[in-house]
Amino acid sequence: MADPTRIWTAALIVIGDEILSGRTQDKNVSQIATWLNVQGIRLREVRVVADDSDAIIESVNILRSRNDYLFTTGGIGPTHDDITVDAIAAALGVAVEVHPQARAMLAGYYETRGGLTDARLRMARVPAGASLIENRMSGAPGIRHGNIFIMAGVPHITAGMLDSLTGTLEGGLPVLSATIGCWVAESEIADLLGAAERAHDGCQIGSYPFFREGRTGANFVVRSTDASALDQCVAALSAALEQGGWPVVPDGI
Amino acid sequence: MADPTRIWTAALIVIGDEILSGRTQDKNVSQIATWLNVQGIRLREVRVVADDSDAIIESVNILRSRNDYLFTTGGIGPTHDDITVDAIAAALGVAVEVHPQARAMLAGYYETRGGLTDARLRMARVPAGASLIENRMSGAPGIRHGNIFIMAGVPHITAGMLDSLTGTLEGGLPVLSATIGCWVAESEIADLLGAAERAHDGCQIGSYPFFREGRTGANFVVRSTDASALDQCVAALSAALEQGGWPVVPDGI
Repeated sequence: MADPTRIWTAALIVIGDEILSGRTQDKNVSQIATWLNVQGIRLREVRVVADDSDAIIESVNILRSRNDYLFTTGGIGPTHDDITVDAIAAALGVAVEVHPQARAMLAGYYETRGGLTDARLRMARVPAGASLIENRMSGAPGIRHGNIFIMAGVPHITAGMLDSLTGTLEGGLPVLSATIGCWVAESEIADLLGAAERAHDGCQIGSYPFFREGRTGANFVVRSTDASALDQCVAALSAALEQGGWPVVPDGI
Repeated sequence: MADPTRIWTAALIVIGDEILSGRTQDKNVSQIATWLNVQGIRLREVRVVADDSDAIIESVNILRSRNDYLFTTGGIGPTHDDITVDAIAAALGVAVEVHPQARAMLAGYYETRGGLTDARLRMARVPAGASLIENRMSGAPGIRHGNIFIMAGVPHITAGMLDSLTGTLEGGLPVLSATIGCWVAESEIADLLGAAERAHDGCQIGSYPFFREGRTGANFVVRSTDASALDQCVAALSAALEQGGWPVVPDGI
C-alpha cells in the first residue's frame, strides 16, 4: 500500500526569452501548479531560463534528480530558437532521434497543410528513448523521457497535454485548501495567525494582504492533506478572528 | 568610460507558496523584467521558491554571485510566513537587526493606525548593513544589501519601489526590440527566420506562434542593443516574408 505521508514533488522549467524579456506574461506556472495539486503532486520549485542550452542543461539535471517529476514548457516548436529537445538530450547524455510515431502524426496533420517540411519534422525529434504525450490541439506531441515531461509553451496546447496525462502519474494525497477573508490589516492579527498554525499540526496558513475599495484586507489560505485537520484549523482561526472583532468572510474576499 | 559591450544581468527570486500552489498569478516577473530592460539590465534567470528558508538561502547564494543584481519579491510582511529577511541574512552570514530609519517610518505610518505593534515592527527588520528602498505605497520599505534588492510581493507596492530605484543602478545599453506579425504558420518560415538571424550579428529573433480568429499566425520579435542593426534585420526579415507571399503586419498582430 502506498505511504499516505509520502510527499510527491515536481519542478517546472519555463524556457523562453519572451518571459524573461517581460514581453509575455507566463500562464503555465499557475496552470501546471493547479493541475499538479489535483494529481497529489506539489510544485516545489520553478525556474525561468533563457533559450540557452547551458542554462537548460544545468536546471534539468539538478531539478530532475531532486524531484519526482520535472516539467518543462516552451522551445519545442519548429524554429531556430526551439532548442529544448537538444538541450534535454544533452543533459541526459542521449542522442536526438526522430520518433517514428511523432513523424507519422505530423505527416498526417500536415498532409492537407502543405506537407511535412524539414522545419516541421523538427517537431518529431525527441531525446532517444522518449515516449510521446498526446496533443489534440495541434500536430506536435509533447515528450516524456523518464520523469521528465516536455510540454508546449503556448498555454492552451499545454492544457491539452496535461489533460492527456491526467490520472497517469503516481501522487500522494492532494493538498486541500480553504480560504477565509477579513477586512483587517494583517499586521493586526499576525500573532493570532501564527498561533493558529502552531496549534494545528499539518496545516499551513498563508496570509495574502490586499487593498481594495479603499480598505485594507487579507485572505488567509489554510492548506493540509488532512480534511479534518483543515476544517478544525479554519474553524479555530475563524473563531479567533470573530472574537477579536473582525468578521470573517467565508471563501475569502 | 563604460564598456558598451558589457552586459549587465539580474536574477529574480519570487518567494511564495501562493505562486507555487497556483492560487496567485505572478505579475512581478514581467513587471521587473520590463523595468530592468529600461535600466540596461537583462533579467537572465528567475526562480520561484516556497516560503522555505533552505530554498531561499540556496537560490540567493548562487544567483547573487553570478549576476550583477539580485531581486527578490515576497515574504517581507508582518506575519509568520514572512521569512525572507531572516533567510537572506542567513545566506549572507549576517545578523538581523531593526533598522532605525525603518522603525521611524513605520512608527509614523502607524501613529494614526493603531500604533507600532511587535508584528508591525517585524517589517523594520533587515539583514545587518542594509539600506532602505523607499515605498510610497505603504509604511514598510524595501531593503537593499549589496547587490540584493528585497522587494514586496504585492505588485503595486513593488512598482513603487522600482520607481524609487529608477536610474540609480548601473547598466549597459538597453535592449531594443521590434515586432512584426504575419498570418503564417511558423513552421512555414522557420528557415527564413534562422537565415535572417544568422545574417544579422547582434540580433536575436524570437518566434511566437498563436491561433486567433480561427487562423494561425506568429509574431517575430527582433532584439538588439544596436538600433541600426535592429532596423536592418527587421527590414530584411520583412522583405523576405513579403517576397514569400506573406504580408507583414508592422508592430505585430
